[in-house]
Amino acid sequence: MVHSIKKVVILGSTGSIGRQTLEVVRSLPDHFKVLGLAGGANVNLLKEQAGEFRPEYIYCRDCHKESACNSRFIPMEEMAALPEADVIVVATPGGAGLQPVLAAAKAGKVVALANKESLVSAGEIVTGIVRENKAKLLPVDSEHSAIWQCLSGEVTPPSRIILTASGGPFRSLTKNEIDKVTPEQALKHPSWKMGLKVTIDSASLMNKGLEIIEARWLFDMHIQNIQVVIHPQSIIHSMVEFADGSLKAQLSRPDMRFPIQYALTYPERVVNHTLPRLNWAEVGKLDFEIPDMTRFPCLGLAISAGEEGKTFPAALCAADEVAVDLFLKGKISFGQIPELIAKVLDAHQPVSKPDIDDILAADAWARQKVTELAGNF
Amino acid sequence: MVHSIKKVVILGSTGSIGRQTLEVVRSLPDHFKVLGLAGGANVNLLKEQAGEFRPEYIYCRDCHKESACNSRFIPMEEMAALPEADVIVVATPGGAGLQPVLAAAKAGKVVALANKESLVSAGEIVTGIVRENKAKLLPVDSEHSAIWQCLSGEVTPPSRIILTASGGPFRSLTKNEIDKVTPEQALKHPSWKMGLKVTIDSASLMNKGLEIIEARWLFDMHIQNIQVVIHPQSIIHSMVEFADGSLKAQLSRPDMRFPIQYALTYPERVVNHTLPRLNWAEVGKLDFEIPDMTRFPCLGLAISAGEEGKTFPAALCAADEVAVDLFLKGKISFGQIPELIAKVLDAHQPVSKPDIDDILAADAWARQKVTELAGNF
Repeated sequence: MVHSIKKVVILGSTGSIGRQTLEVVRSLPDHFKVLGLAGGANVNLLKEQAGEFRPEYIYCRDCHKESACNSRFIPMEEMAALPEADVIVVATPGGAGLQPVLAAAKAGKVVALANKESLVSAGEIVTGIVRENKAKLLPVDSEHSAIWQCLSGEVTPPSRIILTASGGPFRSLTKNEIDKVTPEQALKHPSWKMGLKVTIDSASLMNKGLEIIEARWLFDMHIQNIQVVIHPQSIIHSMVEFADGSLKAQLSRPDMRFPIQYALTYPERVVNHTLPRLNWAEVGKLDFEIPDMTRFPCLGLAISAGEEGKTFPAALCAADEVAVDLFLKGKISFGQIPELIAKVLDAHQPVSKPDIDDILAADAWARQKVTELAGNF
Repeated sequence: MVHSIKKVVILGSTGSIGRQTLEVVRSLPDHFKVLGLAGGANVNLLKEQAGEFRPEYIYCRDCHKESACNSRFIPMEEMAALPEADVIVVATPGGAGLQPVLAAAKAGKVVALANKESLVSAGEIVTGIVRENKAKLLPVDSEHSAIWQCLSGEVTPPSRIILTASGGPFRSLTKNEIDKVTPEQALKHPSWKMGLKVTIDSASLMNKGLEIIEARWLFDMHIQNIQVVIHPQSIIHSMVEFADGSLKAQLSRPDMRFPIQYALTYPERVVNHTLPRLNWAEVGKLDFEIPDMTRFPCLGLAISAGEEGKTFPAALCAADEVAVDLFLKGKISFGQIPELIAKVLDAHQPVSKPDIDDILAADAWARQKVTELAGNF
């Protein structure tokens, strides 16, 4: 089969999604060429990646131009907008993902989006810029990739989105037990291999809450038409219910390389023998249950922030990022994550129809507020 | 929303699928108008349906022209090819479905196909005529509708089809117990409301075997790439696995009105409040297991006939139809259904590249052979 080789830029190449994107590229050398890599603190890994994939361009936040390989150093914004790039993978974590997404969207690029915080914080602005510049947002989150795949070819808008959630490692614990878990316990995710922050967010169900807001913008749905169902096996990655009451689901073994590869090969699908297959003799059963917002208050906080809109989601995102960091450093308990976020949201003075400066201000305010509140614990 | 009213012809309107098609039409009066109805033995119900839906045309195999309503009597073939029809629902049961399908396909119609035997017996011929005449085959079987929905929008051919099967009422019985079940037991299907023959075929898994051959023609797949998985809840109606190892599934409560309505409204989806919704708090779990061909030999017989091709599938279909009839009449045991079919297939002298006459001859020979063999039991 004759096909052209896609030129891929990976922003955040040393993180979990970045590394798994490079695994997909490594396993399909006839399909992809790495055009650019961008990383932050993990300078050694970035150098190693540059050595293996020999990108034309590189951006390294934490190192000097002279320190590396033969790649050309360019600023992050230029990297996100490279005219010869076929797809820009934005896997920069947390709040740091917003500027690269905006740069790629303004340049009308095809963006494979792994950073959910940019859409949660600034969904209306980002999707507006995408539309204006005829850019494309291809979701890399497994749930949103599933929804996107299920919507393929459908001409009538969906009536409901059902986001599945593994439920995380604390699905069966009591509220008291959950409040006291250690970072080590929270980092043991039962089904997915992911980065630190998203693993903690999965354990608190904040991740699912952020995904509700992300889905709201990606698929133009009302928050109340987005439902969460706990599905511990993480095989059904999400579902769409249509007007007639019929549903479609997308399934695979829980492995981020599936949604990453689909975003890269879209609209085609490509054989990749390194990806694990589902074996129905082994699957046995798929379980489903309704989430418990009392034991997992982060989910409810995110839904409220999503429904309120304005700068609430930006404050939520930033507060969560700092709270998770404090938890990982042993400075607050797991139960204090939602407590802190709730206090931040209570104290937040929202801005209606925010522009990017308002979003960034809400973000900075929330980070400051969490730190201040945590100091009083 | 402005939309045109589709004119629907229903062949086999008094059978299970025919009646459920009329339920869909009744619940969506702004979307459909019954243009023609055709029935067989159930003359009273056909008259009743004609009274309610006032079709312009009618065909009644077992009654006289003068006996009915104001509709115009026309032959079945003319009914199947009505120029003003937007969609022809072929729900005529068993071998009697072949001629109407051929007539509709030759006229280049959109055919909502509920009769699987026509594709099993004469799949190559039927799909050839469909292609030549730019007709369209829209599957009404829930499994094939599911596959068709999952393929929507995909540009790369699927690598595997996974047909789900409820497993029928005898899923947990031993071989000895299965061989001795009564027609009453076999007619109690755990999840689906269907006609007599398909209910017995579901209990023996012959139905799933026929569906493998049907899928082979509808989706141009090799038999060995079509797998059967037992799924007792009948909520996932089938799945497609793509080249990348990702799968899509279509789901709903088990109710034939879903696939019927989708075939009628395709490519759109329409709200129908009379259809039951899936409630994930109630679903709880979905089970899967691999079918046991020893306890359910009909499945293996169908796979072999499908792989052999030629006139074997036609002989299989006809033999099964007669064997099921003999079982329902109490003349043979449930265990003798596969025994008889196996003997017929063993004795069959296949014709390669059969034309319609060869198919009809194989069909007639198999019917005769089953009757003859059953006489010796």
